[in-house]
Amino acid sequence: MQDGILVINAGSSSIKFSLFLSQEGIKPTLSCKGLVEGIDTAPHFVVKSPLGLVLNERRWSDQPDMRHEELFKHLIEWVEDHLGDVHLRAAGHRVVHGGALYSQPMPVTDQLLDELDELVPLAPLHQPHNLAPIRALRLVHPELIQVACFDTAFHRSNPWQAQSFALPRKITIEGVRRYGFHGLSYEYISRTLKSYAPATARSKVVVAHLGNGASMCAIAEGKSVASTLGFTALDGLPMGTRSGTIDAGVVLYLLQQKGMNAKEIEDLLYRQSGLLGVSGVSSDMRVLLDSLEPRAAEAVDLFVYRIARELGSLAAAMGGLDAFVFTGGIGENAVAIRSRVCALAEWLGVRMDTEANEQAAPLISALDSKVSVWVIPTDEEMMIAKHTREVLRALRSQGGSV
Amino acid sequence: MQDGILVINAGSSSIKFSLFLSQEGIKPTLSCKGLVEGIDTAPHFVVKSPLGLVLNERRWSDQPDMRHEELFKHLIEWVEDHLGDVHLRAAGHRVVHGGALYSQPMPVTDQLLDELDELVPLAPLHQPHNLAPIRALRLVHPELIQVACFDTAFHRSNPWQAQSFALPRKITIEGVRRYGFHGLSYEYISRTLKSYAPATARSKVVVAHLGNGASMCAIAEGKSVASTLGFTALDGLPMGTRSGTIDAGVVLYLLQQKGMNAKEIEDLLYRQSGLLGVSGVSSDMRVLLDSLEPRAAEAVDLFVYRIARELGSLAAAMGGLDAFVFTGGIGENAVAIRSRVCALAEWLGVRMDTEANEQAAPLISALDSKVSVWVIPTDEEMMIAKHTREVLRALRSQGGSV
Repeated sequence: MQDGILVINAGSSSIKFSLFLSQEGIKPTLSCKGLVEGIDTAPHFVVKSPLGLVLNERRWSDQPDMRHEELFKHLIEWVEDHLGDVHLRAAGHRVVHGGALYSQPMPVTDQLLDELDELVPLAPLHQPHNLAPIRALRLVHPELIQVACFDTAFHRSNPWQAQSFALPRKITIEGVRRYGFHGLSYEYISRTLKSYAPATARSKVVVAHLGNGASMCAIAEGKSVASTLGFTALDGLPMGTRSGTIDAGVVLYLLQQKGMNAKEIEDLLYRQSGLLGVSGVSSDMRVLLDSLEPRAAEAVDLFVYRIARELGSLAAAMGGLDAFVFTGGIGENAVAIRSRVCALAEWLGVRMDTEANEQAAPLISALDSKVSVWVIPTDEEMMIAKHTREVLRALRSQGGSV
Repeated sequence: MQDGILVINAGSSSIKFSLFLSQEGIKPTLSCKGLVEGIDTAPHFVVKSPLGLVLNERRWSDQPDMRHEELFKHLIEWVEDHLGDVHLRAAGHRVVHGGALYSQPMPVTDQLLDELDELVPLAPLHQPHNLAPIRALRLVHPELIQVACFDTAFHRSNPWQAQSFALPRKITIEGVRRYGFHGLSYEYISRTLKSYAPATARSKVVVAHLGNGASMCAIAEGKSVASTLGFTALDGLPMGTRSGTIDAGVVLYLLQQKGMNAKEIEDLLYRQSGLLGVSGVSSDMRVLLDSLEPRAAEAVDLFVYRIARELGSLAAAMGGLDAFVFTGGIGENAVAIRSRVCALAEWLGVRMDTEANEQAAPLISALDSKVSVWVIPTDEEMMIAKHTREVLRALRSQGGSV
């Protein structure tokens, strides 16, 4: 009999899930993955095999008021009906915020949930949606081990200078600090790089996670030492519709001189900026790369330039650069972006192998490149499954009856 | 008979001035410098010789309501009374904002003043005070050539990617962009470096202007290509009481979750943050370096760390680094800060000569340092005097009767 590990990644308008099979000695295997999307508009449930075969699908087009809870219940019931001889052992959840304290995944307890609730003001758009399915599962399966895997945890190894703004202590202590996000992705990449090239993974590595959300992380000896996302998902690189780093004086200007309110500014910076704002065309890099609009090209230019600048800053955080990894939707697929970023990184000793880049071979740098350059697809769900299994093992070794 | 050039640097609570003597073929010579300070509290006028001898002093302790205009009138009258056989030819003014258009100093005209007035919303705390003495001088000396020298002008050579936030075009076009400041200081340093080491000045140089306000600038082939100050004086490095770069999401958090208003946040970020906020002790680097408080040391750590990170980012903007210059009050005087920053810059090829650093010899790098490192005292007033003389010459060569 195989163990099953359910991975849940719940957002405001969608709940993604994956079912992994776990056996001792081999890495977890994906059994199926699916999602509920269109929550609050036109809910749609679909679940597919690892190779994309649709296993089940359902729409509630006439029921836009179906609540998260009901849809999640449907999801869980489908999983339970299809477990066969798999024993569901645990559920691992992506939780955006683990605060300043948690540097690793944590088994869910009442106390942990209370603590994670207190972090809601730091991530009001995400944290409540991450916690809701944990509570829902506890009601129907109180015996199930649940594990919270935090997007912030991997960065808690950062030196405090990289975690601090130059703000009054009082405000820092209240929690206004640089947490960093995309940690599950960075941890997955760091472990995968270790399996490809163990010595490289112990050196000075920058990973560029370039997707609709985008950030970069400096990883020295396998530990995060700095990253571009700070207190919120607004910092660092320009993203699909988010501005990335701007002068805080811009926000004051929009408040004081333009008479905008906080909600309007939030909407501007989160949903009207980034690639979409600069191009006026699209937030999708594929569309921009295909577009003939000069402004689309400019949005791409700005994205590439900012990556190159952050690469220098992150190399400085480690005192050098030995390896550079691309991941995320853009990082894994946009040959031109990788090529242009690497051209701007030649001063650091980067030499790309054009053919390897076109094939997205894991190693895309030339033989004589001082810095090795890689393309490694990320898999946050796999990382959560692995974490969840590790927590399970730790609980078992503590003599629990799990 | 010698020409006199009056240099004015007017702020909200002080008006600084310098009188330069100008002769063809040699650089302007400082004749005297002084200031009116304590405007709105206890006005105090003092003027000194270049070596610090007090030439005149006056206090209006019982007249805190003396207006800028009256105090400026007193200043001008003192200068006129002491010109001797010097003919006052021109006045050069430091003007913080020249907008997106002006990449060099401009002779003052009605049209220029109107245009500079339109920039007041971009720098409401400084621009009006910069413009007031220009208008006051025009009233009493309508024949005097006046020249506006902009803190932003030197950075107009930046590529557009370095001047742009990833915001919607509409907002960028309205003027929300990265202007960069401290330009008169950077231009002075770049010219001075040229006189020390012409080939170096044509290479890839980063200048760190570290004073109560602090910023850094990448200068390639004598032209600014990127700098750390952006739209306002709040961006980039932590400063005496200013935060430097923070996640814009922090401002939204303070508005939405902490219920602070724009004025309170402005006060927090401009006057309670930076070295003062982190240390809780002082905004003055000298005090912090002498303090035994752990938090004072932490403020210094953060300052040094952020300089090292920005150095990497600015090197990336040029594709390398050949020279690194320290200037400003901290840059010129704090041996320990230079030493610590250089230690974090070793990965870029920086090797400091400890003894040269202690003496603040202009060249403080070791002979085998790949990057030459310099200490060069800045002199923004001299830069304004030179600019003003250059504008005078250009007007004369156009056949004016000046």
